[in-house]
Amino acid sequence: MKLKTLLIVATGTAALPTFALAQDAAPDIQPYILTTLLFLVGGFLVFWMAAGFAMLEAGLVRSKNVTMQLTKNIALFSIASIMYWLIGFNLMYPGDAWSIAGWMGPLFSPTSLEPVGLDAADAALDYASVGSDFFFQLMFVAATASIVSGTLAERIKLWPFLLFVVLLTGVMYPISGSWQWGGGWLSEAGFSDFAGSTIVHSVGGWAALAGAIVLGPRLGKYKEGRVNPMPGSNLALATLGTFILWLGWFGFNGGSQLAAGTVGDITDVSRIFANTNMAAASGAVAALILTQIMFKKVDLTMVLNGALAGLVSITAEPLAPTLFGALWIGAVGGVIVVFTVPLLDKLKIDDVVGAIPVHLIAGIWGTIAVVFYNGDASLSTQIMGIIAYGAFTFVASLIVWSVLKGVIGIRVSEEAEINGLDTAELGMEAYPDFSRG
Amino acid sequence: MKLKTLLIVATGTAALPTFALAQDAAPDIQPYILTTLLFLVGGFLVFWMAAGFAMLEAGLVRSKNVTMQLTKNIALFSIASIMYWLIGFNLMYPGDAWSIAGWMGPLFSPTSLEPVGLDAADAALDYASVGSDFFFQLMFVAATASIVSGTLAERIKLWPFLLFVVLLTGVMYPISGSWQWGGGWLSEAGFSDFAGSTIVHSVGGWAALAGAIVLGPRLGKYKEGRVNPMPGSNLALATLGTFILWLGWFGFNGGSQLAAGTVGDITDVSRIFANTNMAAASGAVAALILTQIMFKKVDLTMVLNGALAGLVSITAEPLAPTLFGALWIGAVGGVIVVFTVPLLDKLKIDDVVGAIPVHLIAGIWGTIAVVFYNGDASLSTQIMGIIAYGAFTFVASLIVWSVLKGVIGIRVSEEAEINGLDTAELGMEAYPDFSRG
Amino acid sequence: MKLKTLLIVATGTAALPTFALAQDAAPDIQPYILTTLLFLVGGFLVFWMAAGFAMLEAGLVRSKNVTMQLTKNIALFSIASIMYWLIGFNLMYPGDAWSIAGWMGPLFSPTSLEPVGLDAADAALDYASVGSDFFFQLMFVAATASIVSGTLAERIKLWPFLLFVVLLTGVMYPISGSWQWGGGWLSEAGFSDFAGSTIVHSVGGWAALAGAIVLGPRLGKYKEGRVNPMPGSNLALATLGTFILWLGWFGFNGGSQLAAGTVGDITDVSRIFANTNMAAASGAVAALILTQIMFKKVDLTMVLNGALAGLVSITAEPLAPTLFGALWIGAVGGVIVVFTVPLLDKLKIDDVVGAIPVHLIAGIWGTIAVVFYNGDASLSTQIMGIIAYGAFTFVASLIVWSVLKGVIGIRVSEEAEINGLDTAELGMEAYPDFSRG
Repeated sequence: MKLKTLLIVATGTAALPTFALAQDAAPDIQPYILTTLLFLVGGFLVFWMAAGFAMLEAGLVRSKNVTMQLTKNIALFSIASIMYWLIGFNLMYPGDAWSIAGWMGPLFSPTSLEPVGLDAADAALDYASVGSDFFFQLMFVAATASIVSGTLAERIKLWPFLLFVVLLTGVMYPISGSWQWGGGWLSEAGFSDFAGSTIVHSVGGWAALAGAIVLGPRLGKYKEGRVNPMPGSNLALATLGTFILWLGWFGFNGGSQLAAGTVGDITDVSRIFANTNMAAASGAVAALILTQIMFKKVDLTMVLNGALAGLVSITAEPLAPTLFGALWIGAVGGVIVVFTVPLLDKLKIDDVVGAIPVHLIAGIWGTIAVVFYNGDASLSTQIMGIIAYGAFTFVASLIVWSVLKGVIGIRVSEEAEINGLDTAELGMEAYPDFSRG
Repeated sequence: MKLKTLLIVATGTAALPTFALAQDAAPDIQPYILTTLLFLVGGFLVFWMAAGFAMLEAGLVRSKNVTMQLTKNIALFSIASIMYWLIGFNLMYPGDAWSIAGWMGPLFSPTSLEPVGLDAADAALDYASVGSDFFFQLMFVAATASIVSGTLAERIKLWPFLLFVVLLTGVMYPISGSWQWGGGWLSEAGFSDFAGSTIVHSVGGWAALAGAIVLGPRLGKYKEGRVNPMPGSNLALATLGTFILWLGWFGFNGGSQLAAGTVGDITDVSRIFANTNMAAASGAVAALILTQIMFKKVDLTMVLNGALAGLVSITAEPLAPTLFGALWIGAVGGVIVVFTVPLLDKLKIDDVVGAIPVHLIAGIWGTIAVVFYNGDASLSTQIMGIIAYGAFTFVASLIVWSVLKGVIGIRVSEEAEINGLDTAELGMEAYPDFSRG
Repeated sequence: MKLKTLLIVATGTAALPTFALAQDAAPDIQPYILTTLLFLVGGFLVFWMAAGFAMLEAGLVRSKNVTMQLTKNIALFSIASIMYWLIGFNLMYPGDAWSIAGWMGPLFSPTSLEPVGLDAADAALDYASVGSDFFFQLMFVAATASIVSGTLAERIKLWPFLLFVVLLTGVMYPISGSWQWGGGWLSEAGFSDFAGSTIVHSVGGWAALAGAIVLGPRLGKYKEGRVNPMPGSNLALATLGTFILWLGWFGFNGGSQLAAGTVGDITDVSRIFANTNMAAASGAVAALILTQIMFKKVDLTMVLNGALAGLVSITAEPLAPTLFGALWIGAVGGVIVVFTVPLLDKLKIDDVVGAIPVHLIAGIWGTIAVVFYNGDASLSTQIMGIIAYGAFTFVASLIVWSVLKGVIGIRVSEEAEINGLDTAELGMEAYPDFSRG
């Protein structure tokens, strides 16, 4: 749970005995230091996920589109970093009680950091430094944008895609994010999404789905009623990307505890690490076994997406489940991938890397699964939250994509698509020394 | 040293003055928090080694077997995660005094984590959270399994290999691991293996050796008395894998200090980091110089394996040596690789990635080298430990491999081996866009 | 700022109230533990940059030279590790007041670590453990050497290059580094270079520039007045390398705060993380937009180098600027890259990966930019420092490269260059399974 104002109260209560034990009157600076450290370490791990998405997507597109996919990924991360500073962060956390300067500007204002050499008396000792919090939260919005780039690969133009990223990371994600993590109406209604199965992953998935519908499938993908497989060019990169994402997810879920300075908090972070790993492992194993049974052959890309779906599934509640809970929740995520990837193809929705099954459908599943282990969550509220995020993001994305399509066009020419976006749009091949098979 | 019960006593004694200085009566929660943090950070670094093994192995097999090698690596890690939870962890640490619930179940029982929001009064304040400890230890067993997959690449069937992984990670490694790190007979005898040159690396090497013998060499590897080189398909990936393993090893050895909350402990972790880096560097330089002298040309794969052998060599005692000690211990590791890789070929033991020289032979060397800097270790006990682990793991592995061979078969057909396991077994190429040279 | 003796005073003053608040008489061991932890985490992140350089360079050279580039990178890191231990560290920090043994040996002496199980009474409680400091500083010298290897790729012989690395990492970098970070004349003059835009990056750049001049351009690079493009063989690897460097830079700049145990210090580390990310992002976006405007097509390699130039630009002062400051300082770095890469080509200085624009020119810019946000810095002193490092490193490098050229030769034969260094010098291809396009 990232609702900071609520959290401060909760932490304050839980930490009181510790405070009392440790010192008498002097403020305890250790929780502040350790939580800040958690955000910095968690943040660089989630940063690393940007590289994971880049490698996964570069590995799953054909070699003629690899340079474009890499360009989109580094550009989207950079744009997200700037937009989230410019307006996103303050838009998402409007009433931050922990604002160190007591500054309450308008909603659309850039992020300010604490002054250099902050005095302990001026610090939000029951939370963490603004800089570390901004750094950590920023990485989440970048993940949302990465999800979109994977689905729409191999046919979308660079600049319209980046314009969408500007709006997604600067406005859309922060607005809907504020409903829950900014202390808005959904958090007051009791919705529960610990690290963002819905708020981050399904939001990315909805934006991707809207884009895939407006953009249409790749040329030749669905031909005469058949699905034409277009295998990725580099499964080693795709596997590397999956391992990177898995690693980064420890920061994604673990850092979302938002506290590390008490016995209870650091032990909870441990639970989250162990559960997150378990869900990824069981998602992979589920896809491994299921593809063997269904197709008589193991499908590596399904196993990779199974692991990722396991991770998405546990993200809404990585703390409360037992290890066995994490196992079956993650395994269901893996099963979802194996069944919904072909389903999308039946609907002729062309999702190049499988991001919609992994992030949207497993994200919905994970948000529902919260009710099994978290006694405070109710199924109806969880579904209400899923629908709210879905409706807002899908409709807003549909509008933005349609406007972009109408005004500047979002799809490359047929010729460019056939020859590859790398030479046609960028004039630069990813693997110029190697001949195509 | 990972013997927790012994360690608690030692830490308790060493930390007493600090406790007294810092607070009067209240328990000090900082060591618990910092050691838990050490396990989490060390754990994610060792997790990262799974990606390192995957990239190293994917780079050192031929392109026609890359998908299979990637599949084995992500599957083995996932299976290890599940098996170690299901029975491995409690089998390895049977009498855990730090069990927070006071729960003493049967040996074959799944791991339980502490409850959410653990109270400081219920925590093992002289150690770390169970969740973090489980997370950290789990990563070690996965490393063991990764070693096996490299040696047996390019010819073993997927499912028999994974069945072996089930037994190795669920039963074999935990049983032999308990002899030392679970407080068993070898730890009582005075055997010393700080982070697992023997317990992890040579165990993986013995299991790999048994498999290589039962499985036999690749077709055409040894022909008419000559060794036919089968160069790896992607040395950039292999180098990346080596760097990843090197990075992960800081967590592997540093985390094995098992404590970070006192001046002495964190300073020891620093020593370990510096020594670990030095041993890797000197292993690489030794192989660099030696291959230049012996073959008149530097051999990159030897340099990579030299670095890894340096790392394995220092793993049994990364704390006690001086930096100069780490230098020469690691350098001997690098020399071992250059001399034993050809030796295995003479014996017609086909080790695709050189895992036996790196993990088994350098692992034995590192375990012996403990006696040079650790005054408490005796050569005879070290040798006894090496033999015990070798005999148990080699014999048990030989039996398991033989049974698997007899019952379901472990080797792909000749045709599949020639065409590559990727198309034959998985129907999926790793680099479908690139024509083979 | 890395000037330890000064820093101890500053930290001491700042921390005094905290000490007084937290405990009465007992020494506070937390700052020591947390700063040591900062060095260990920062150090492994900067270690990871070695892999980043290796991947970036392997991706930007042609496939026939990849094995050689990988070999140089792992070898240079290993050699740097040994040389910095053997003489570099003590040469750079000659009067270390924090030497725990009170040991003041001659300048040319190997590094000694603290004894195992250091007692708190013997520790430099106002700083960090020697082992962690050595580990962290060592990674910086390796980065310097990596810069050189990129510029001189595809034509320099292995061993002369490694001999240069011996001198650079053992002698040259430590001598000039001591002027500032060892408390020498430049630090006394008021020069300011927080994490090393000049001391690390431009020093690497000057050494590379001298080498490029002595070595000459690649065959056919400048022909009949035209610049012949020689595109890199693997842009996915180059992008991965950039992401790795970006990640490692959080440790590079964040760890250079040299303290993490007070509210002020950890908050400053947060500022540094946020600013570092912003500068990288704005450098990338600046290059993205500028290449679109200038060339009508986005150039991925420029975007990658733009991000890196943004990182180099903020490295001299990642703490004082606001996020907006980091944005424009980094953006100027990105602009510099786009304009100076063609400039070098006009001068027929062949820099294979663009390391001179990124590390030297953006490094100079970053060192000048200090004056905009750090009130203690003066433009004249900054320029004096830039010139001092430039003159010393460029002249010393020119001499070393010339002597190497005269005595043993530094360039491969024309035939070897045409066929590729991999087969000619190493007898080993990086991608033997793939035919060249």
